[in-house]
Amino acid sequence: MRAPQHPDREQFSLVSVLHGLSDPARLEIVRLLATVPERACTDFHGIGGLTVPTLSHHLRVLRECGVTRTRIDGKHRYVSLRRDDLELRFPGVLDAIIEAAPTQAVD
Amino acid sequence: MRAPQHPDREQFSLVSVLHGLSDPARLEIVRLLATVPERACTDFHGIGGLTVPTLSHHLRVLRECGVTRTRIDGKHRYVSLRRDDLELRFPGVLDAIIEAAPTQAVD
Repeated sequence: MRAPQHPDREQFSLVSVLHGLSDPARLEIVRLLATVPERACTDFHGIGGLTVPTLSHHLRVLRECGVTRTRIDGKHRYVSLRRDDLELRFPGVLDAIIEAAPTQAVD
Repeated sequence: MRAPQHPDREQFSLVSVLHGLSDPARLEIVRLLATVPERACTDFHGIGGLTVPTLSHHLRVLRECGVTRTRIDGKHRYVSLRRDDLELRFPGVLDAIIEAAPTQAVD
């Protein structure tokens, strides 16, 4: 399995982060990550009837803009929020969005 | 001139607001509105070499998601942030984003 690429904190763009969060499924993934250290990718299979390829796409968008980190352990992938990095670059933004996110953003 | 339509505060969607803000030109418009009660639409003509149709598009996106209000006075249009409405629906989100927005988001 190829190691996933992550942008350095200095490369984050506010526009990209906001775009990353401007989707109901991605916002729900972030909300589900907000209360735990990390989650297995398979935890997200229940979100709004997403197909696996669509879920993979959303997880890639979140990773590539810096919102999440993906860790590989054997055959499993685990995802976590890059909360500290985001807080350093864009103070208060992620926390305010998580707080405002509807409990179930996905129809 | 047709009166511009504005969503009620209750109709705001966090996903739509984040999408509205996830563009360099729109983020710059919001930043320019953050320090004044309102601005004439013509004030934005200098942003990143936007054409008038493109600027109109961006202003429409911001208005339709609830981020801005457009007021018509004679032949002129004035735009303001719906800061109070946004603060009531999504506390802290707009302020944190404005604070984090780069001084010149447009290349």
